[in-house]
Amino acid sequence: MSNSMFDHKLSSPSLDFQPLYLQVADSIKQLIVKRHWLPGEALPSEFRLAEEFNVSQGTVRKALNLLTDNKIVTRRQGVGTFVSEHTSQDALFRFFPLQADGKSDNSPKAELLSVELCAAPAEAIKALQLNKKDKVTKLVRRRILDNEFCMSETIYLPQSYFPDIHKSSDIPHTLYHYYQSKFNQTVHKTQDSIKAVLATIDDAKMLAIKAGDPLLLVSRITESIEGKRIEYRLSKCRSDHYHYQIELD
Amino acid sequence: MSNSMFDHKLSSPSLDFQPLYLQVADSIKQLIVKRHWLPGEALPSEFRLAEEFNVSQGTVRKALNLLTDNKIVTRRQGVGTFVSEHTSQDALFRFFPLQADGKSDNSPKAELLSVELCAAPAEAIKALQLNKKDKVTKLVRRRILDNEFCMSETIYLPQSYFPDIHKSSDIPHTLYHYYQSKFNQTVHKTQDSIKAVLATIDDAKMLAIKAGDPLLLVSRITESIEGKRIEYRLSKCRSDHYHYQIELD
Repeated sequence: MSNSMFDHKLSSPSLDFQPLYLQVADSIKQLIVKRHWLPGEALPSEFRLAEEFNVSQGTVRKALNLLTDNKIVTRRQGVGTFVSEHTSQDALFRFFPLQADGKSDNSPKAELLSVELCAAPAEAIKALQLNKKDKVTKLVRRRILDNEFCMSETIYLPQSYFPDIHKSSDIPHTLYHYYQSKFNQTVHKTQDSIKAVLATIDDAKMLAIKAGDPLLLVSRITESIEGKRIEYRLSKCRSDHYHYQIELD
Repeated sequence: MSNSMFDHKLSSPSLDFQPLYLQVADSIKQLIVKRHWLPGEALPSEFRLAEEFNVSQGTVRKALNLLTDNKIVTRRQGVGTFVSEHTSQDALFRFFPLQADGKSDNSPKAELLSVELCAAPAEAIKALQLNKKDKVTKLVRRRILDNEFCMSETIYLPQSYFPDIHKSSDIPHTLYHYYQSKFNQTVHKTQDSIKAVLATIDDAKMLAIKAGDPLLLVSRITESIEGKRIEYRLSKCRSDHYHYQIELD
């Protein structure tokens, strides 16, 4: 592989005997993490990858199948394999689980209320596995669905992964796409904990409801494809006209 | 295939050109649905299946991979492939998403409060796609976690899929396993809608809480592996010491 296009080699047979296709998948993922290929960019052909990694095309195919299942790459029939990209629509619908009770084709909108760099509160320190002195950028937003305030969001972003985000004047509605394109942080997994709570006086003002109304409190920890915890988000959601929907199989 | 062990043939090339492995996967699934192999039972070897279906072993392997991903069969390394079974533990943890806030190794328990055959209420008719005259068996249960009432459940089962279940004197805690072993209804998918509600006076009595306390209302539609809607379940869950947990990727 001396003339390899990659500055990367498969490690020699390791002690834990990881199957070859897993090693290949991991190598491809590392190259994506290192931005050897950018979001939306095409990967080389299976033939080319097999040659570069010095493995069979079948092994490359198995590796790409795994990365497709993990949504790290996307295959387009007859076209090729691409690094997955958080387009605004895709990220909105993949990770926004609140749905209108009736039919609604409207996308949720976001209103950014405040942005500040501050000391991380205790629950953000715990959720994001930070040190006590670490700072976070805190964003407060209000989401709008069908012309109604449907939820408030308080978002904590570690300063180390999102340097100077609090100075940006152009933070868009579609945060996951922004994290990927500006900070090279690709959202891969979210873990939501859901509780029912009563609206406080502040919640009531924010969402134009009454104090004491029931709300869903969704605490979300978001992991990047590198397995780092990059965002902690507390959402307080009305559920009188919406529901949180989830499918298990 | 005249001496075939299966009373089943692959259909001739169909008009929609479904890939061969999908046809094989579908045929194996149909044989499972028809109880040619029972839950927990081993499937024949890949070699044998390839011979029976008159396809390559590679095609059988692809079909079994798909059925494994769909949790319809389970592969045990070096042993073989088995029809998935809802053991009590497995079903409890796969489909019971309420978790204690702290660490808890206790399994949830269930207390059966009532069983009756009745006319289906409007929301069960809608959820289960029933006719207005269809009857359902209604079960009311209370779940206990860490010695505390954590949720009430109202469960609707169509009479056609669960004949005479209301006459059973031995309905166990682990319903999904019971559905599979006694009624040949294998739970495959659940779809949960979650709202926040205030406890009514009845809820408060049932769960030993105060009226007006916030509760999670989880409406669950359950599908069998045949794609039939077999259960509609309304759960009212305390979330003061528990949360509903979900991972997306």
